[in-house]
Amino acid sequence: MKLNRVLIYGMGLMGGSLSLAIREKFPNTELTAIVRSKKSKESIITNKLADIVFTLDENNEIQWDQFDLVVFSTPVASILELIPNLPKTGSTIYMDLGSTKQSIIEVVDNHFGDVKHNYISTHPMCGSEQTGPEAAVPGLYDDKLCILTKPENGNQSTFEDVKHFWEIIGSWTIQMDAKTHDETLAYVSHLPHVVSTILVNVAGKNKTTMGQVSSIPKAITGGGFRDMSRIAGSNSEMWISIFKENKEFLKHSINDFIEQLTEFRDLFLNTNDLDESRIHSIWDLALKQKETIQKTK
Amino acid sequence: MKLNRVLIYGMGLMGGSLSLAIREKFPNTELTAIVRSKKSKESIITNKLADIVFTLDENNEIQWDQFDLVVFSTPVASILELIPNLPKTGSTIYMDLGSTKQSIIEVVDNHFGDVKHNYISTHPMCGSEQTGPEAAVPGLYDDKLCILTKPENGNQSTFEDVKHFWEIIGSWTIQMDAKTHDETLAYVSHLPHVVSTILVNVAGKNKTTMGQVSSIPKAITGGGFRDMSRIAGSNSEMWISIFKENKEFLKHSINDFIEQLTEFRDLFLNTNDLDESRIHSIWDLALKQKETIQKTK
Repeated sequence: MKLNRVLIYGMGLMGGSLSLAIREKFPNTELTAIVRSKKSKESIITNKLADIVFTLDENNEIQWDQFDLVVFSTPVASILELIPNLPKTGSTIYMDLGSTKQSIIEVVDNHFGDVKHNYISTHPMCGSEQTGPEAAVPGLYDDKLCILTKPENGNQSTFEDVKHFWEIIGSWTIQMDAKTHDETLAYVSHLPHVVSTILVNVAGKNKTTMGQVSSIPKAITGGGFRDMSRIAGSNSEMWISIFKENKEFLKHSINDFIEQLTEFRDLFLNTNDLDESRIHSIWDLALKQKETIQKTK
Repeated sequence: MKLNRVLIYGMGLMGGSLSLAIREKFPNTELTAIVRSKKSKESIITNKLADIVFTLDENNEIQWDQFDLVVFSTPVASILELIPNLPKTGSTIYMDLGSTKQSIIEVVDNHFGDVKHNYISTHPMCGSEQTGPEAAVPGLYDDKLCILTKPENGNQSTFEDVKHFWEIIGSWTIQMDAKTHDETLAYVSHLPHVVSTILVNVAGKNKTTMGQVSSIPKAITGGGFRDMSRIAGSNSEMWISIFKENKEFLKHSINDFIEQLTEFRDLFLNTNDLDESRIHSIWDLALKQKETIQKTK
Protein backbone atom coordinates (compact mmCIF):
# COMPACT_ATOMS: atom_id res chain seq x y z
CA MET A 1 0.00 0.00 0.00
CA LYS A 2 1.55 3.22 -1.24
CA LEU A 3 1.09 6.12 1.16
CA ASN A 4 3.03 9.02 -0.31
CA ARG A 5 0.15 11.44 -0.07
CA VAL A 6 -2.81 11.24 2.26
CA LEU A 7 -5.80 13.56 2.46
CA ILE A 8 -7.72 13.76 5.71
CA TYR A 9 -11.04 15.42 4.99
CA GLY A 10 -12.32 16.87 8.26
CA MET A 11 -9.81 17.00 11.06
CA GLY A 12 -11.19 16.90 14.57
CA LEU A 13 -10.20 14.56 17.37
CA MET A 14 -10.36 11.46 15.14
CA GLY A 15 -8.74 12.89 12.01
CA GLY A 16 -6.12 14.77 14.00
CA SER A 17 -5.20 11.70 16.02
CA LEU A 18 -4.98 9.69 12.80
CA SER A 19 -2.53 12.32 11.48
CA LEU A 20 -0.35 11.83 14.52
CA ALA A 21 -0.47 8.06 14.08
CA ILE A 22 0.37 8.30 10.36
CA ARG A 23 3.29 10.64 11.15
CA GLU A 24 4.65 8.02 13.51
CA LYS A 25 4.07 4.91 11.40
CA PHE A 26 4.55 6.40 7.93
CA PRO A 27 7.01 9.25 8.53
CA ASN A 28 7.49 9.98 4.81
CA THR A 29 3.82 10.54 4.07
CA GLU A 30 2.76 14.03 3.06
CA LEU A 31 -0.42 14.89 4.94
CA THR A 32 -3.06 17.24 3.58
CA ALA A 33 -6.04 18.35 5.67
CA ILE A 34 -9.28 19.96 4.58
CA VAL A 35 -11.33 21.60 7.32
CA ARG A 36 -14.36 23.82 7.61
CA SER A 37 -13.20 26.60 9.89
CA LYS A 38 -10.25 28.97 9.97
CA LYS A 39 -9.93 28.19 13.68
CA SER A 40 -9.36 24.49 12.94
CA LYS A 41 -6.89 25.39 10.21
CA GLU A 42 -4.86 27.49 12.63
CA SER A 43 -4.95 24.79 15.30
CA ILE A 44 -3.75 22.18 12.77
CA ILE A 45 -0.89 24.42 11.66
CA THR A 46 0.08 25.24 15.26
CA ASN A 47 0.05 21.58 16.23
CA LYS A 48 1.71 20.45 12.99
CA LEU A 49 -1.06 17.93 12.32
CA ALA A 50 -0.73 18.27 8.55
CA ASP A 51 1.77 19.54 6.01
CA ILE A 52 -0.82 21.30 3.89
CA VAL A 53 -4.13 22.67 5.19
CA PHE A 54 -7.07 24.13 3.30
CA THR A 55 -10.41 25.39 4.40
CA LEU A 56 -13.33 24.32 2.22
CA ASP A 57 -13.56 27.86 0.82
CA GLU A 58 -9.98 27.69 -0.33
CA ASN A 59 -10.21 24.32 -2.02
CA ASN A 60 -13.61 23.22 -3.17
CA GLU A 61 -12.38 21.46 -6.30
CA ILE A 62 -10.36 18.62 -4.88
CA GLN A 63 -8.11 16.60 -7.20
CA TRP A 64 -8.87 13.29 -5.52
CA ASP A 65 -6.56 11.22 -7.69
CA GLN A 66 -3.43 13.02 -6.49
CA PHE A 67 -3.80 11.16 -3.16
CA ASP A 68 -3.03 7.53 -2.38
CA LEU A 69 -5.49 7.53 0.48
CA VAL A 70 -8.43 9.81 1.27
CA VAL A 71 -9.92 9.58 4.76
CA PHE A 72 -13.32 11.14 5.44
CA SER A 73 -13.42 12.15 9.06
CA THR A 74 -16.59 14.26 9.21
CA PRO A 75 -20.10 13.54 10.48
CA VAL A 76 -21.87 10.90 8.39
CA ALA A 77 -24.24 13.43 6.82
CA SER A 78 -21.26 15.20 5.22
CA ILE A 79 -19.72 11.93 4.09
CA LEU A 80 -22.96 11.07 2.29
CA GLU A 81 -22.75 14.34 0.36
CA LEU A 82 -19.09 13.79 -0.57
CA ILE A 83 -19.31 10.25 -1.93
CA PRO A 84 -21.21 11.14 -5.15
CA ASN A 85 -18.32 13.46 -6.11
CA LEU A 86 -15.68 10.73 -6.08
CA PRO A 87 -14.15 9.46 -9.33
CA LYS A 88 -15.32 5.93 -10.11
CA THR A 89 -11.95 4.78 -11.34
CA GLY A 90 -8.33 5.27 -10.36
CA SER A 91 -6.07 3.82 -7.69
CA THR A 92 -6.91 6.23 -4.82
CA ILE A 93 -8.23 4.39 -1.79
CA TYR A 94 -11.22 6.01 -0.06
CA MET A 95 -12.03 5.33 3.54
CA ASP A 96 -14.34 6.95 6.08
CA LEU A 97 -14.42 6.86 9.88
CA GLY A 98 -18.22 7.14 9.94
CA SER A 99 -20.16 6.14 13.04
CA THR A 100 -22.96 4.44 11.09
CA LYS A 101 -22.67 2.24 8.04
CA GLN A 102 -25.99 1.47 6.35
CA SER A 103 -26.50 4.86 4.74
CA ILE A 104 -22.84 5.14 3.72
CA ILE A 105 -22.82 1.72 2.08
CA GLU A 106 -26.09 2.48 0.31
CA VAL A 107 -24.71 5.72 -1.13
CA VAL A 108 -21.42 4.00 -2.08
CA ASP A 109 -23.29 1.16 -3.83
CA ASN A 110 -25.49 3.64 -5.70
CA HIS A 111 -22.57 5.80 -6.73
CA PHE A 112 -20.22 3.10 -7.97
CA GLY A 113 -22.93 0.81 -9.32
CA ASP A 114 -21.37 -2.23 -11.01
CA VAL A 115 -17.88 -0.74 -11.05
CA LYS A 116 -15.31 -2.42 -8.82
CA HIS A 117 -13.95 0.31 -6.59
CA ASN A 118 -11.61 1.24 -3.73
CA TYR A 119 -14.03 2.58 -1.12
CA ILE A 120 -13.92 0.78 2.24
CA SER A 121 -15.87 2.02 5.24
CA THR A 122 -14.24 1.83 8.67
CA HIS A 123 -15.16 2.68 12.23
CA PRO A 124 -12.42 2.91 14.85
CA MET A 125 -14.03 2.26 18.22
CA CYS A 126 -12.53 5.13 20.08
CA GLY A 127 -13.38 8.72 20.55
CA SER A 128 -14.05 11.03 23.37
CA GLU A 129 -16.36 13.77 24.50
CA GLN A 130 -13.53 16.08 23.44
CA THR A 131 -13.76 17.64 19.99
CA GLY A 132 -11.62 19.56 17.54
CA PRO A 133 -8.09 19.08 16.26
CA GLU A 134 -6.67 20.43 19.54
CA ALA A 135 -8.06 17.29 21.21
CA ALA A 136 -5.97 15.04 18.96
CA VAL A 137 -3.73 12.64 20.85
CA PRO A 138 -1.01 10.26 19.71
CA GLY A 139 -1.90 6.65 20.42
CA LEU A 140 -5.69 7.16 20.23
CA TYR A 141 -5.97 4.08 17.99
CA ASP A 142 -3.47 1.89 19.82
CA ASP A 143 -4.94 -1.43 20.88
CA LYS A 144 -8.46 -0.29 19.89
CA LEU A 145 -10.92 -2.14 17.70
CA CYS A 146 -11.53 -0.88 14.16
CA ILE A 147 -14.64 -2.23 12.43
CA LEU A 148 -14.32 -2.64 8.66
CA THR A 149 -17.29 -2.74 6.30
CA LYS A 150 -16.75 -3.72 2.69
CA PRO A 151 -19.27 -2.50 0.11
CA GLU A 152 -20.38 -5.25 -2.26
CA ASN A 153 -18.17 -4.05 -5.11
CA GLY A 154 -15.25 -2.83 -3.04
CA ASN A 155 -12.08 -4.59 -4.19
CA GLN A 156 -11.02 -7.40 -1.89
CA SER A 157 -7.38 -6.35 -2.28
CA THR A 158 -8.30 -2.80 -1.18
CA PHE A 159 -10.10 -4.25 1.81
CA GLU A 160 -6.92 -6.13 2.72
CA ASP A 161 -4.87 -2.96 2.29
CA VAL A 162 -7.16 -0.97 4.57
CA LYS A 163 -7.15 -3.75 7.13
CA HIS A 164 -3.36 -3.81 7.01
CA PHE A 165 -3.24 0.00 7.31
CA TRP A 166 -5.26 -0.07 10.56
CA GLU A 167 -3.16 -2.88 11.93
CA ILE A 168 0.02 -0.88 11.30
CA ILE A 169 -1.65 2.12 12.97
CA GLY A 170 -2.03 -0.14 16.00
CA SER A 171 -5.68 -1.23 15.98
CA TRP A 172 -7.36 -4.61 15.97
CA THR A 173 -9.68 -5.14 13.02
CA ILE A 174 -12.94 -6.98 12.54
CA GLN A 175 -15.29 -7.14 9.57
CA MET A 176 -19.02 -6.46 9.96
CA ASP A 177 -21.78 -5.92 7.45
CA ALA A 178 -23.46 -2.51 7.64
CA LYS A 179 -26.70 -3.66 9.27
CA THR A 180 -24.96 -5.68 11.97
CA HIS A 181 -22.67 -2.74 12.65
CA ASP A 182 -25.50 -0.26 13.03
CA GLU A 183 -27.63 -2.48 15.25
CA THR A 184 -24.69 -3.38 17.51
CA LEU A 185 -23.52 0.21 17.75
CA ALA A 186 -27.03 1.38 18.65
CA TYR A 187 -26.77 -0.75 21.79
CA VAL A 188 -23.14 -0.28 22.80
CA SER A 189 -22.63 3.34 21.77
CA HIS A 190 -25.63 5.36 20.60
CA LEU A 191 -28.05 4.35 23.36
CA PRO A 192 -25.43 4.98 26.08
CA HIS A 193 -24.96 8.54 24.79
CA VAL A 194 -28.70 9.17 24.84
CA VAL A 195 -29.05 7.67 28.31
CA SER A 196 -26.16 9.71 29.71
CA THR A 197 -27.64 12.93 28.34
CA ILE A 198 -31.17 12.21 29.59
CA LEU A 199 -29.79 11.25 33.02
CA VAL A 200 -28.20 14.67 33.44
CA ASN A 201 -31.36 16.43 32.28
CA VAL A 202 -33.54 14.40 34.65
CA ALA A 203 -31.36 15.43 37.60
CA GLY A 204 -31.25 18.96 36.22
CA LYS A 205 -35.04 19.20 36.17
CA ASN A 206 -35.45 18.11 39.79
CA LYS A 207 -35.80 21.25 41.89
CA THR A 208 -34.67 19.74 45.18
CA THR A 209 -31.51 18.36 43.60
CA MET A 210 -30.64 21.59 41.85
CA GLY A 211 -31.43 23.58 45.01
CA GLN A 212 -28.86 21.52 46.90
CA VAL A 213 -26.37 21.65 44.04
CA SER A 214 -26.46 25.42 43.97
CA SER A 215 -26.21 25.81 47.74
CA ILE A 216 -23.06 23.68 48.10
CA PRO A 217 -19.57 24.80 47.10
CA LYS A 218 -18.54 21.20 46.47
CA ALA A 219 -19.95 18.72 43.94
CA ILE A 220 -22.60 16.59 45.61
CA THR A 221 -22.08 13.75 43.16
CA GLY A 222 -19.75 10.82 43.57
CA GLY A 223 -17.89 8.83 40.95
CA GLY A 224 -21.03 7.07 39.74
CA PHE A 225 -22.75 10.19 38.47
CA ARG A 226 -19.48 11.58 37.17
CA ASP A 227 -18.82 8.52 35.02
CA MET A 228 -22.45 8.21 33.95
CA SER A 229 -22.52 11.81 32.76
CA ARG A 230 -19.10 12.07 31.13
CA ILE A 231 -20.44 11.66 27.59
CA ALA A 232 -23.66 13.63 28.23
CA GLY A 233 -24.37 16.47 25.85
CA SER A 234 -21.17 16.01 23.88
CA ASN A 235 -20.84 16.94 20.24
CA SER A 236 -24.51 17.48 19.35
CA GLU A 237 -23.91 17.90 15.63
CA MET A 238 -22.16 14.56 15.35
CA TRP A 239 -24.80 12.79 17.41
CA ILE A 240 -27.75 14.25 15.53
CA SER A 241 -26.12 12.93 12.38
CA ILE A 242 -25.64 9.49 13.93
CA PHE A 243 -29.19 9.37 15.29
CA LYS A 244 -30.68 10.30 11.93
CA GLU A 245 -28.68 7.64 10.14
CA ASN A 246 -29.49 4.97 12.66
CA LYS A 247 -32.98 5.96 13.74
CA GLU A 248 -34.62 2.53 13.45
CA PHE A 249 -32.09 0.67 15.56
CA LEU A 250 -31.85 3.60 17.96
CA LYS A 251 -35.62 3.57 18.46
CA HIS A 252 -35.50 -0.18 19.05
CA SER A 253 -32.77 0.19 21.64
CA ILE A 254 -34.62 3.03 23.41
CA ASN A 255 -37.82 1.01 23.43
CA ASP A 256 -35.95 -1.97 24.88
CA PHE A 257 -34.53 0.33 27.55
CA ILE A 258 -37.91 1.84 28.44
CA GLU A 259 -39.38 -1.66 28.63
CA GLN A 260 -36.73 -3.01 31.02
CA LEU A 261 -36.71 0.18 33.11
CA THR A 262 -40.51 0.11 33.41
CA GLU A 263 -40.38 -3.53 34.49
CA PHE A 264 -37.84 -2.59 37.12
CA ARG A 265 -39.90 0.35 38.38
CA ASP A 266 -42.97 -1.85 38.64
CA LEU A 267 -41.13 -4.10 41.10
CA PHE A 268 -41.43 -1.19 43.54
CA LEU A 269 -45.13 -0.51 43.13
CA ASN A 270 -45.71 -2.53 46.26
CA THR A 271 -42.57 -3.03 48.32
CA ASN A 272 -44.48 -4.86 51.05
CA ASP A 273 -44.24 -7.70 48.62
CA LEU A 274 -40.94 -6.77 46.97
CA ASP A 275 -39.48 -9.51 44.83
CA GLU A 276 -35.92 -9.14 46.05
CA SER A 277 -34.76 -12.22 44.22
CA ARG A 278 -35.85 -10.57 40.95
CA ILE A 279 -33.66 -7.52 41.68
CA HIS A 280 -30.79 -9.79 42.65
CA SER A 281 -31.09 -11.62 39.35
CA ILE A 282 -31.26 -8.34 37.36
CA TRP A 283 -28.12 -7.17 39.18
CA ASP A 284 -26.29 -10.48 38.80
CA LEU A 285 -27.16 -10.65 35.11
CA ALA A 286 -25.76 -7.13 34.58
CA LEU A 287 -22.55 -8.03 36.36
CA LYS A 288 -22.12 -11.14 34.23
CA GLN A 289 -23.03 -9.46 30.94
CA LYS A 290 -20.80 -6.50 31.69
CA GLU A 291 -17.86 -8.87 31.97
CA THR A 292 -18.88 -10.65 28.77
CA ILE A 293 -19.33 -7.41 26.80
CA GLN A 294 -16.16 -5.80 28.10
CA LYS A 295 -14.17 -9.04 27.86
CA THR A 296 -12.90 -8.58 31.39
CA LYS A 297 -13.53 -12.25 32.14
CA MET B 1 -14.22 14.86 71.04
CA LYS B 2 -12.65 11.90 72.84
CA LEU B 3 -11.75 9.04 70.51
CA ASN B 4 -9.98 6.47 72.66
CA ARG B 5 -12.13 3.59 71.51
CA VAL B 6 -14.08 3.37 68.28
CA LEU B 7 -16.36 0.57 67.11
CA ILE B 8 -16.95 0.14 63.42
CA TYR B 9 -19.96 -2.09 62.98
CA GLY B 10 -19.75 -3.63 59.54
CA MET B 11 -16.44 -3.23 57.77
CA GLY B 12 -16.51 -3.24 54.00
CA LEU B 13 -15.03 -0.68 51.66
CA MET B 14 -16.49 2.27 53.59
CA GLY B 15 -15.84 1.06 57.13
CA GLY B 16 -12.41 -0.28 56.26
CA SER B 17 -11.39 2.96 54.59
CA LEU B 18 -12.65 4.87 57.63
CA SER B 19 -10.41 2.67 59.78
CA LEU B 20 -7.42 3.62 57.69
CA ALA B 21 -8.33 7.30 57.96
CA ILE B 22 -8.82 7.09 61.74
CA ARG B 23 -5.48 5.30 62.10
CA GLU B 24 -3.85 8.20 60.27
CA LYS B 25 -5.65 11.10 61.94
CA PHE B 26 -6.17 9.60 65.42
CA PRO B 27 -3.20 7.23 65.80
CA ASN B 28 -3.92 6.48 69.48
CA THR B 29 -7.46 5.27 68.89
CA GLU B 30 -8.19 1.60 69.57
CA LEU B 31 -10.29 0.26 66.72
CA THR B 32 -12.80 -2.55 67.15
CA ALA B 33 -14.62 -4.09 64.19
CA ILE B 34 -17.70 -6.27 64.12
CA VAL B 35 -18.35 -8.14 60.90
CA ARG B 36 -20.66 -10.82 59.63
CA SER B 37 -18.31 -13.29 57.99
CA LYS B 38 -15.14 -15.11 59.03
CA LYS B 39 -13.69 -14.18 55.63
CA SER B 40 -14.08 -10.46 56.40
CA LYS B 41 -12.59 -11.00 59.85
CA GLU B 42 -9.52 -12.64 58.35
CA SER B 43 -9.12 -9.92 55.75
CA ILE B 44 -9.36 -7.23 58.45
CA ILE B 45 -6.74 -8.95 60.56
CA THR B 46 -4.44 -9.48 57.56
CA ASN B 47 -4.77 -5.85 56.52
CA LYS B 48 -4.57 -4.56 60.11
CA LEU B 49 -7.80 -2.58 59.67
CA ALA B 50 -8.75 -2.99 63.35
CA ASP B 51 -7.12 -3.89 66.65
CA ILE B 52 -9.94 -6.14 67.78
CA VAL B 53 -12.29 -8.02 65.44
CA PHE B 54 -15.39 -10.03 66.23
CA THR B 55 -17.85 -11.81 64.05
CA LEU B 56 -21.49 -11.35 65.05
CA ASP B 57 -21.57 -14.92 66.38
CA GLU B 58 -18.71 -14.17 68.70
CA ASN B 59 -20.11 -10.95 70.14
CA ASN B 60 -23.84 -10.49 69.98
CA GLU B 61 -24.11 -8.63 73.29
CA ILE B 62 -22.25 -5.47 72.57
CA GLN B 63 -21.32 -3.15 75.44
CA TRP B 64 -22.03 0.02 73.51
CA ASP B 65 -21.00 2.40 76.30
CA GLN B 66 -17.40 1.24 76.29
CA PHE B 67 -16.89 3.09 73.00
CA ASP B 68 -16.54 6.82 72.42
CA LEU B 69 -17.81 6.48 68.90
CA VAL B 70 -19.83 3.77 67.21
CA VAL B 71 -20.02 3.84 63.42
CA PHE B 72 -22.65 1.75 61.63
CA SER B 73 -21.31 0.85 58.24
CA THR B 74 -23.79 -1.76 57.07
CA PRO B 75 -26.71 -1.63 54.63
CA VAL B 76 -29.53 0.60 55.88
CA ALA B 77 -31.83 -2.37 56.61
CA SER B 78 -29.34 -3.64 59.19
CA ILE B 79 -28.88 -0.18 60.69
CA LEU B 80 -32.64 0.04 61.21
CA GLU B 81 -32.54 -3.21 63.19
CA LEU B 82 -29.61 -2.07 65.31
CA ILE B 83 -30.91 1.33 66.42
CA PRO B 84 -33.63 0.02 68.80
CA ASN B 85 -30.89 -1.78 70.78
CA LEU B 86 -28.92 1.35 71.57
CA PRO B 87 -28.87 2.75 75.13
CA LYS B 88 -30.84 5.99 75.32
CA THR B 89 -28.37 7.68 77.62
CA GLY B 90 -24.59 7.86 77.97
CA SER B 91 -21.86 9.77 76.19
CA THR B 92 -21.21 7.35 73.32
CA ILE B 93 -21.68 9.03 69.95
CA TYR B 94 -23.54 6.98 67.34
CA MET B 95 -23.15 7.61 63.69
CA ASP B 96 -24.09 5.72 60.53
CA LEU B 97 -22.86 5.90 56.96
CA GLY B 98 -26.28 4.99 55.59
CA SER B 99 -27.14 5.73 51.98
CA THR B 100 -30.70 6.84 52.77
CA LYS B 101 -31.89 8.97 55.66
CA GLN B 102 -35.68 9.12 56.06
CA SER B 103 -36.13 5.63 57.48
CA ILE B 104 -33.07 5.94 59.73
CA ILE B 105 -34.21 9.27 61.16
CA GLU B 106 -37.71 7.88 61.69
CA VAL B 107 -36.38 4.88 63.63
CA VAL B 108 -33.99 7.12 65.62
CA ASP B 109 -36.82 9.54 66.50
CA ASN B 110 -39.06 6.64 67.54
CA HIS B 111 -36.37 4.99 69.61
CA PHE B 112 -35.10 8.01 71.52
CA GLY B 113 -38.47 9.76 71.78
CA ASP B 114 -38.16 12.95 73.80
CA VAL B 115 -34.69 12.07 75.11
CA LYS B 116 -31.85 14.27 73.87
CA HIS B 117 -29.32 11.89 72.32
CA ASN B 118 -26.01 11.49 70.50
CA TYR B 119 -27.09 9.84 67.25
CA ILE B 120 -26.13 11.74 64.09
CA SER B 121 -26.65 10.27 60.64
CA THR B 122 -23.99 10.86 57.99
CA HIS B 123 -23.43 9.98 54.36
CA PRO B 124 -19.96 10.32 52.89
CA MET B 125 -20.39 10.78 49.15
CA CYS B 126 -17.86 8.28 48.02
CA GLY B 127 -17.86 4.61 47.38
CA SER B 128 -17.08 2.30 44.57
CA GLU B 129 -18.34 -0.75 42.79
CA GLN B 130 -15.69 -2.56 44.85
CA THR B 131 -16.83 -4.24 48.05
CA GLY B 132 -15.40 -5.84 51.15
CA PRO B 133 -12.68 -4.80 53.57
CA GLU B 134 -9.99 -5.79 51.06
CA ALA B 135 -11.24 -2.88 48.89
CA ALA B 136 -10.47 -0.37 51.67
CA VAL B 137 -8.18 2.45 50.61
CA PRO B 138 -6.50 5.24 52.56
CA GLY B 139 -7.68 8.65 51.47
CA LEU B 140 -11.15 7.49 50.34
CA TYR B 141 -12.72 10.38 52.24
CA ASP B 142 -10.17 13.04 51.32
CA ASP B 143 -11.73 16.07 49.71
CA LYS B 144 -15.12 14.31 49.46
CA LEU B 145 -18.46 15.63 50.58
CA CYS B 146 -20.03 14.19 53.73
CA ILE B 147 -23.74 14.92 54.21
CA LEU B 148 -24.84 15.24 57.85
CA THR B 149 -28.42 14.74 59.00
CA LYS B 150 -29.36 15.68 62.55
CA PRO B 151 -32.37 13.96 64.10
CA GLU B 152 -34.71 16.39 65.84
CA ASN B 153 -33.46 15.50 69.33
CA GLY B 154 -29.83 14.89 68.46
CA ASN B 155 -27.61 17.12 70.59
CA GLN B 156 -26.34 20.15 68.71
CA SER B 157 -22.93 19.72 70.39
CA THR B 158 -22.78 16.12 69.15
CA PHE B 159 -23.64 17.34 65.68
CA GLU B 160 -20.72 19.77 65.88
CA ASP B 161 -18.43 16.98 67.11
CA VAL B 162 -19.40 14.71 64.23
CA LYS B 163 -18.98 17.54 61.74
CA HIS B 164 -15.54 18.23 63.20
CA PHE B 165 -14.68 14.53 63.06
CA TRP B 166 -15.41 14.36 59.31
CA GLU B 167 -13.46 17.53 58.66
CA ILE B 168 -10.42 16.09 60.44
CA ILE B 169 -10.84 12.91 58.38
CA GLY B 170 -10.53 15.16 55.35
CA SER B 171 -14.08 15.61 54.06
CA TRP B 172 -16.21 18.64 53.37
CA THR B 173 -19.47 18.66 55.29
CA ILE B 174 -22.97 19.89 54.54
CA GLN B 175 -26.20 19.52 56.49
CA MET B 176 -29.38 18.22 54.85
CA ASP B 177 -32.70 17.14 56.24
CA ALA B 178 -33.59 13.50 55.60
CA LYS B 179 -36.21 14.13 52.92
CA THR B 180 -34.02 16.50 50.92
CA HIS B 181 -31.16 14.02 51.19
CA ASP B 182 -33.20 11.11 49.92
CA GLU B 183 -34.77 13.01 47.03
CA THR B 184 -31.43 14.46 45.92
CA LEU B 185 -29.65 11.13 46.21
CA ALA B 186 -32.37 9.41 44.17
CA TYR B 187 -31.41 11.65 41.26
CA VAL B 188 -27.63 11.84 41.59
CA SER B 189 -26.88 8.34 42.85
CA HIS B 190 -29.70 5.80 42.96
CA LEU B 191 -31.17 6.45 39.50
CA PRO B 192 -27.68 6.36 37.89
CA HIS B 193 -27.08 2.91 39.38
CA VAL B 194 -30.41 1.64 38.05
CA VAL B 195 -29.77 3.16 34.62
CA SER B 196 -26.28 1.69 34.38
CA THR B 197 -27.56 -1.77 35.26
CA ILE B 198 -30.49 -1.63 32.83
CA LEU B 199 -28.20 -0.34 30.07
CA VAL B 200 -26.00 -3.43 30.34
CA ASN B 201 -29.00 -5.75 30.37
CA VAL B 202 -30.55 -4.05 27.33
CA ALA B 203 -27.33 -4.58 25.36
CA GLY B 204 -27.10 -8.08 26.81
CA LYS B 205 -30.57 -8.97 25.54
CA ASN B 206 -29.89 -7.86 21.97
CA LYS B 207 -28.93 -10.95 19.97
CA THR B 208 -27.00 -9.16 17.23
CA THR B 209 -24.90 -7.30 19.79
CA MET B 210 -24.13 -10.38 21.82
CA GLY B 211 -23.44 -12.38 18.65
CA GLN B 212 -20.77 -9.85 17.71
CA VAL B 213 -19.43 -9.63 21.25
CA SER B 214 -18.90 -13.36 21.41
CA SER B 215 -17.29 -13.60 17.97
CA ILE B 216 -14.64 -10.94 18.66
CA PRO B 217 -11.55 -11.48 20.84
CA LYS B 218 -11.46 -7.77 21.70
CA ALA B 219 -14.07 -5.64 23.51
CA ILE B 220 -16.28 -3.95 20.94
CA THR B 221 -17.15 -1.13 23.32
CA GLY B 222 -15.36 2.17 23.66
CA GLY B 223 -14.91 4.37 26.68
CA GLY B 224 -18.54 5.53 26.67
CA PHE B 225 -20.02 2.10 27.37
CA ARG B 226 -17.21 1.26 29.78
CA ASP B 227 -17.88 4.32 31.92
CA MET B 228 -21.65 3.97 31.65
CA SER B 229 -21.50 0.37 32.85
CA ARG B 230 -18.86 0.65 35.57
CA ILE B 231 -21.40 0.70 38.41
CA ALA B 232 -23.81 -1.77 36.75
CA GLY B 233 -24.78 -4.75 38.84
CA SER B 234 -22.60 -3.81 41.78
CA ASN B 235 -23.39 -4.78 45.33
CA SER B 236 -26.97 -5.97 44.90
CA GLU B 237 -27.63 -6.41 48.61
CA MET B 238 -26.73 -2.81 49.39
CA TRP B 239 -28.74 -1.48 46.48
CA ILE B 240 -31.86 -3.49 47.27
CA SER B 241 -31.69 -2.01 50.74
CA ILE B 242 -31.32 1.51 49.35
CA PHE B 243 -34.13 1.05 46.84
CA LYS B 244 -36.51 -0.23 49.50
CA GLU B 245 -35.75 2.67 51.79
CA ASN B 246 -36.09 5.25 49.05
CA LYS B 247 -38.76 3.71 46.86
CA GLU B 248 -40.97 6.77 46.44
CA PHE B 249 -38.22 9.12 45.29
CA LEU B 250 -36.66 6.36 43.22
CA LYS B 251 -39.97 5.74 41.45
CA HIS B 252 -40.32 9.48 40.81
CA SER B 253 -36.84 9.68 39.35
CA ILE B 254 -37.42 6.61 37.15
CA ASN B 255 -40.72 8.05 35.94
CA ASP B 256 -39.00 11.34 35.13
CA PHE B 257 -36.37 9.41 33.21
CA ILE B 258 -38.91 7.37 31.25
CA GLU B 259 -40.82 10.57 30.44
CA GLN B 260 -37.79 12.41 29.08
CA LEU B 261 -36.48 9.35 27.23
CA THR B 262 -39.89 8.76 25.63
CA GLU B 263 -40.05 12.41 24.54
CA PHE B 264 -36.61 12.00 23.00
CA ARG B 265 -37.57 8.80 21.18
CA ASP B 266 -40.69 10.43 19.81
CA LEU B 267 -38.54 13.03 18.07
CA PHE B 268 -37.46 10.20 15.77
CA LEU B 269 -40.88 8.86 14.89
CA ASN B 270 -40.67 10.84 11.68
CA THR B 271 -37.16 11.96 10.82
CA ASN B 272 -38.28 13.51 7.55
CA ASP B 273 -39.43 16.28 9.82
CA LEU B 274 -36.81 15.87 12.56
CA ASP B 275 -36.68 18.78 14.98
CA GLU B 276 -32.90 19.04 15.08
CA SER B 277 -33.01 22.25 17.10
CA ARG B 278 -34.85 20.32 19.84
CA ILE B 279 -32.05 17.71 20.01
CA HIS B 280 -29.46 20.49 20.02
CA SER B 281 -31.19 22.14 22.96
CA ILE B 282 -31.46 18.83 24.87
CA TRP B 283 -27.75 18.26 24.28
CA ASP B 284 -26.76 21.82 25.17
CA LEU B 285 -28.88 21.74 28.32
CA ALA B 286 -27.16 18.51 29.42
CA LEU B 287 -23.73 20.01 28.84
CA LYS B 288 -24.62 23.07 30.91
CA GLN B 289 -26.30 21.15 33.70
CA LYS B 290 -23.47 18.64 33.89
CA GLU B 291 -21.08 21.49 34.57
CA THR B 292 -23.44 22.97 37.17
CA ILE B 293 -23.98 19.66 38.96
CA GLN B 294 -20.33 18.66 38.89
CA LYS B 295 -19.13 22.18 39.68
CA THR B 296 -16.68 22.05 36.84
CA LYS B 297 -17.66 25.56 35.79
